[in-house]
Amino acid sequence: MKRINIGIIGGTGYTGVELLRLLAAHPAANVVCITSRSEAGRPVSDLYPSLRGHCELAYQAPTPTLFDQCDIVFAATPNGVAMNYAETLLKKDIKLIDFSADFRINDVAVWSEWYGMDHACPHLLSDAVYGLPEFNREQIRNAMLVANPGCYPTAVQLGYMPLLRNGLIETDSLIADCKSGASGAGKNAKTDLLFCEISESVKAYAASGHRHLPEIRQGLQDMTREPLNLVFVPHLMPMIRGIHATLYARLKQSDVDLQAVFEAAYADEPFVDVMPAGSHPDTRSVRGTNMCRIAVYHLKENNQALVLSVEDNVVKGAAGQAIQNMNIMMGIEETTGLNLPALVP
Amino acid sequence: MKRINIGIIGGTGYTGVELLRLLAAHPAANVVCITSRSEAGRPVSDLYPSLRGHCELAYQAPTPTLFDQCDIVFAATPNGVAMNYAETLLKKDIKLIDFSADFRINDVAVWSEWYGMDHACPHLLSDAVYGLPEFNREQIRNAMLVANPGCYPTAVQLGYMPLLRNGLIETDSLIADCKSGASGAGKNAKTDLLFCEISESVKAYAASGHRHLPEIRQGLQDMTREPLNLVFVPHLMPMIRGIHATLYARLKQSDVDLQAVFEAAYADEPFVDVMPAGSHPDTRSVRGTNMCRIAVYHLKENNQALVLSVEDNVVKGAAGQAIQNMNIMMGIEETTGLNLPALVP
Amino acid sequence: MKRINIGIIGGTGYTGVELLRLLAAHPAANVVCITSRSEAGRPVSDLYPSLRGHCELAYQAPTPTLFDQCDIVFAATPNGVAMNYAETLLKKDIKLIDFSADFRINDVAVWSEWYGMDHACPHLLSDAVYGLPEFNREQIRNAMLVANPGCYPTAVQLGYMPLLRNGLIETDSLIADCKSGASGAGKNAKTDLLFCEISESVKAYAASGHRHLPEIRQGLQDMTREPLNLVFVPHLMPMIRGIHATLYARLKQSDVDLQAVFEAAYADEPFVDVMPAGSHPDTRSVRGTNMCRIAVYHLKENNQALVLSVEDNVVKGAAGQAIQNMNIMMGIEETTGLNLPALVP
Amino acid sequence: MKRINIGIIGGTGYTGVELLRLLAAHPAANVVCITSRSEAGRPVSDLYPSLRGHCELAYQAPTPTLFDQCDIVFAATPNGVAMNYAETLLKKDIKLIDFSADFRINDVAVWSEWYGMDHACPHLLSDAVYGLPEFNREQIRNAMLVANPGCYPTAVQLGYMPLLRNGLIETDSLIADCKSGASGAGKNAKTDLLFCEISESVKAYAASGHRHLPEIRQGLQDMTREPLNLVFVPHLMPMIRGIHATLYARLKQSDVDLQAVFEAAYADEPFVDVMPAGSHPDTRSVRGTNMCRIAVYHLKENNQALVLSVEDNVVKGAAGQAIQNMNIMMGIEETTGLNLPALVP
Repeated sequence: MKRINIGIIGGTGYTGVELLRLLAAHPAANVVCITSRSEAGRPVSDLYPSLRGHCELAYQAPTPTLFDQCDIVFAATPNGVAMNYAETLLKKDIKLIDFSADFRINDVAVWSEWYGMDHACPHLLSDAVYGLPEFNREQIRNAMLVANPGCYPTAVQLGYMPLLRNGLIETDSLIADCKSGASGAGKNAKTDLLFCEISESVKAYAASGHRHLPEIRQGLQDMTREPLNLVFVPHLMPMIRGIHATLYARLKQSDVDLQAVFEAAYADEPFVDVMPAGSHPDTRSVRGTNMCRIAVYHLKENNQALVLSVEDNVVKGAAGQAIQNMNIMMGIEETTGLNLPALVP
Repeated sequence: MKRINIGIIGGTGYTGVELLRLLAAHPAANVVCITSRSEAGRPVSDLYPSLRGHCELAYQAPTPTLFDQCDIVFAATPNGVAMNYAETLLKKDIKLIDFSADFRINDVAVWSEWYGMDHACPHLLSDAVYGLPEFNREQIRNAMLVANPGCYPTAVQLGYMPLLRNGLIETDSLIADCKSGASGAGKNAKTDLLFCEISESVKAYAASGHRHLPEIRQGLQDMTREPLNLVFVPHLMPMIRGIHATLYARLKQSDVDLQAVFEAAYADEPFVDVMPAGSHPDTRSVRGTNMCRIAVYHLKENNQALVLSVEDNVVKGAAGQAIQNMNIMMGIEETTGLNLPALVP
Repeated sequence: MKRINIGIIGGTGYTGVELLRLLAAHPAANVVCITSRSEAGRPVSDLYPSLRGHCELAYQAPTPTLFDQCDIVFAATPNGVAMNYAETLLKKDIKLIDFSADFRINDVAVWSEWYGMDHACPHLLSDAVYGLPEFNREQIRNAMLVANPGCYPTAVQLGYMPLLRNGLIETDSLIADCKSGASGAGKNAKTDLLFCEISESVKAYAASGHRHLPEIRQGLQDMTREPLNLVFVPHLMPMIRGIHATLYARLKQSDVDLQAVFEAAYADEPFVDVMPAGSHPDTRSVRGTNMCRIAVYHLKENNQALVLSVEDNVVKGAAGQAIQNMNIMMGIEETTGLNLPALVP
Repeated sequence: MKRINIGIIGGTGYTGVELLRLLAAHPAANVVCITSRSEAGRPVSDLYPSLRGHCELAYQAPTPTLFDQCDIVFAATPNGVAMNYAETLLKKDIKLIDFSADFRINDVAVWSEWYGMDHACPHLLSDAVYGLPEFNREQIRNAMLVANPGCYPTAVQLGYMPLLRNGLIETDSLIADCKSGASGAGKNAKTDLLFCEISESVKAYAASGHRHLPEIRQGLQDMTREPLNLVFVPHLMPMIRGIHATLYARLKQSDVDLQAVFEAAYADEPFVDVMPAGSHPDTRSVRGTNMCRIAVYHLKENNQALVLSVEDNVVKGAAGQAIQNMNIMMGIEETTGLNLPALVP
């Protein structure tokens, strides 16, 4: 298999170390450089001993020519960083997959409102492809710039997609009650994220509006022609990895076989697993993997569809999906390097 | 303060040990006996070393006259046990507070359907008072037999009550997405409840119908004259204690001040704390206490009310509420023994 | 009971909130002020909603006269702060209990070496009493300045004390293998303390020398006339509260009844509980309480004494022991406000 | 690569599912059957949804000819089971790797004393090879019957081996203070193993003698000619996976470079990683991998060697080491299928 030369911008956080973990098992991946201003000069495996023997690189400060030998670059950076790299990379014909929100929102005014800054390259937004392969595979194949979806948006969109595309639900009152492990908040030195603050407790957050709301809304809207109204409430769970999206929607008609609809919708998808009727997917069943597991219920008494959608937020919700996108963009088998079972227990 | 002589049926489980913990701090409580067939003869503090120095009792096998000196008996037993004790106790003028579901459902047919057995004393159902003081205080005051509410039903009913009583929401599509710690499942030797099964994972369960559904439905229905349709989905969290109920409802009108409604509704309630607007109550803020903390949001774009309601499932959701009921029934200050802050962190 | 007017310096951390929690249940305690420069003006219950209804104070910036009405002041501050308050308070005849290490080490040179700063008032060190009541009760009774012991030192000293005082062990090779919950590291915004770093993992730290080593060594040395050599290795556990000290020592003689020795040593101690032979105390059995639970084994094949000593690091290891000391210093019953059972499960 | 036909006896527990997870990534492994009496007929991926798409087998009840097509059989069964299969398999020239203790102890009387039963085939004990490759690689290469080491014994032996083989320590007072996650206790429906019993708590267990003690003692004794005295105290941690062994030993001489000794000892070992001086290996750094990470300290003031040795108890402590043994026995590259980085965070 031809080697893919890979650069990583900003690999000190949880999605960065996960990307390195997954690429270590990818037969075609050749990570040639990884940047960090704060850790420049430090071996990656010194910061993450789990990578001892699997990564010989040291972090480097970014330079203008650092990525010149790369076929593709992953930006595992906070919002507002990748947009400053995009133009230069694209001009050099280097593909870019951005983990942040910089290229996810089509409407630059909406983006600026939610992310509180001006966009550095709004003219590239129309070239950026939203990297949800199950929705967008063909555009990804030819993309130079992919906006890797957020963790919540992935779980929610995959859960609602069969219902929306088949026109089965009322779209005026969707409710997405989502639960996430703490790694979704990143490796940031904040008291709110301390072990003693998160363990043995559950809470909602951003109940009046989370940054993933416009992204989810845009994604779902692309799946239907009807006006869409969505409530999205994220909750913080005392666990490291995993998202559980519990999705509610009123059905338009009562005589529909939801199980069959979901099984048909995802029959050919390698990373969406529709479970047997009556299942309750748990987040651990996808821990460390790129799989999204889904169960669907028809609550007849309530005329409601209920979807339970789980993923690992740092894999299918970040680094794994990015590799899936890379595989598609580089023209290799989509599942390459992503085909391992979850760590259970 | 006059001593209250207390008997406990079946105190080996989590609600039993919590009852003993709370009663140890109750100035009027005098626990005279506690039963367990399987642990008969064993000192309570041998099974629960945390009670060393606080409880000198040993478990006893139940006998016909064991509770004769008691003013009140708590049944902390599985469903189907307390109903066999009720008649005898009541005839002897001994009050009974039952932690199980035996006396919670008015309609015996519904009860039998959900609990899978015949009821031993259906004629007592009309005498039983549902022990949610915030809804039912006056009836509890004069009750001989109190059905202590379930853990989920307490959090959900307290969250919806101000909305329903004031007729503010459409009752045809209530959604209660609830998250519970593992202690709600009791101290049962089942593989599903092992540390290695629950830690670092989240899942829904009983999505097609949980036993608390008819109880919640009945309770909410009592608060409104309109027909009521409720979706209730419980989820298991990797934590010991705590319930977080996330409650959704469409508002009938958009110009309502929900914060003011909730503050007024619970202004005089010692164990319901309406938090300031914009708050996100976390379950740890009520750990070990009888408090239910609530925040309410008016999601204007969605015309939805969102209520976040947290409690400690073994206190306000079980043993603490039982003591609150006892205090009311025995004519002493309702908050006696229940006025301590939560254990944080 | 006469009210004790209490001031608290620096109450935003975990020992501060725990002190407030415990004082809320103390019938004589009247907290009149609490300081924090960073949170000045903010209600305590806004930072810690668990204290809503239990603490009406707001944090204040410290002023020269703020504590003038206090009988006693607790300093729940980082090392190096309380030493700047001590002289002023003592001159005004206000007692001081310091949670930090400022007054724990007799030898100021040793202190400076381990804590990396000069001492602000070395002349007060000889007046300071080390606040381990089980060792030092009479001196505490008359002290104006008490150095509240560290969390590890409390568990280790209480575990070794009966062996040392009775001259039963070789003191040339003591090994204290200690395990602590994360709250011992305080509420500091460091990446090392994040939930995702600590959960589902165990590690040793400061294996080549932890700051509590000189404190423990000094304390143990005070219990014996023989030269003392101690290895102390702390480990970080994925839990919030609790210390488990596993203590090893070679016995001088083989025909000794260690169980009897320990029971005799602590027969009159309200906060040391010697468990029955063969017990394994777990940290949760003391969660939220001021109790230290101890089991002792005579490993005959190895001629070793093995002591298992558990405490709640923020209670007996900090705030609870401080209140115990206050009770002694103020001449009230030593157990006042500290007599509640642990939170289990 | 030639396919290895594999049978598994008793694959419903944690070491069973881990074996299947690891074998799914092993390019030569072909699992042809897996037995369970209790789950006979049930698809493996129904019990463990994490294996959906990775394992098409269903559990089967064992039959006399079931394993006839196998090259090798793993017994992931409780103690006392594999010894009933061994003779039959060996006669058919099928290799056996036993996860249990049945073939670990040379002295059948010692085995019977600790395991409370008679041995079914004591004559096979002398043929059984103890499967610690770092100690025993050549014997394993030619073995038909391998006793896969226990989880604690692996971490302890690898930690002490360089010290013992080089004669550097006094062997009369070794102390192994070990900490294990809950998966070491298996997937057994016992109240002691419930989430609510284990979470947020730490305790020692089997302090007066754990079954792994004779195994460790025998293994260490094989590394030295001197008489050996060992204290081994296991502790239960609130985490799923991981063992942290903290090993203490008095040094015979003070002028030894322990770091160099350990680096030399394990220079060629693919699954022992000696970390840089001053490191504190955490258990998560080996989560899901077959690596044992070790740090060594020379505590000069105490003239002690301190070794910190971590492993994943279900991988290097069970299923991973078994595959390592299989690779050696089958003559393929020892690291095949075991070369992935740990799951962090």
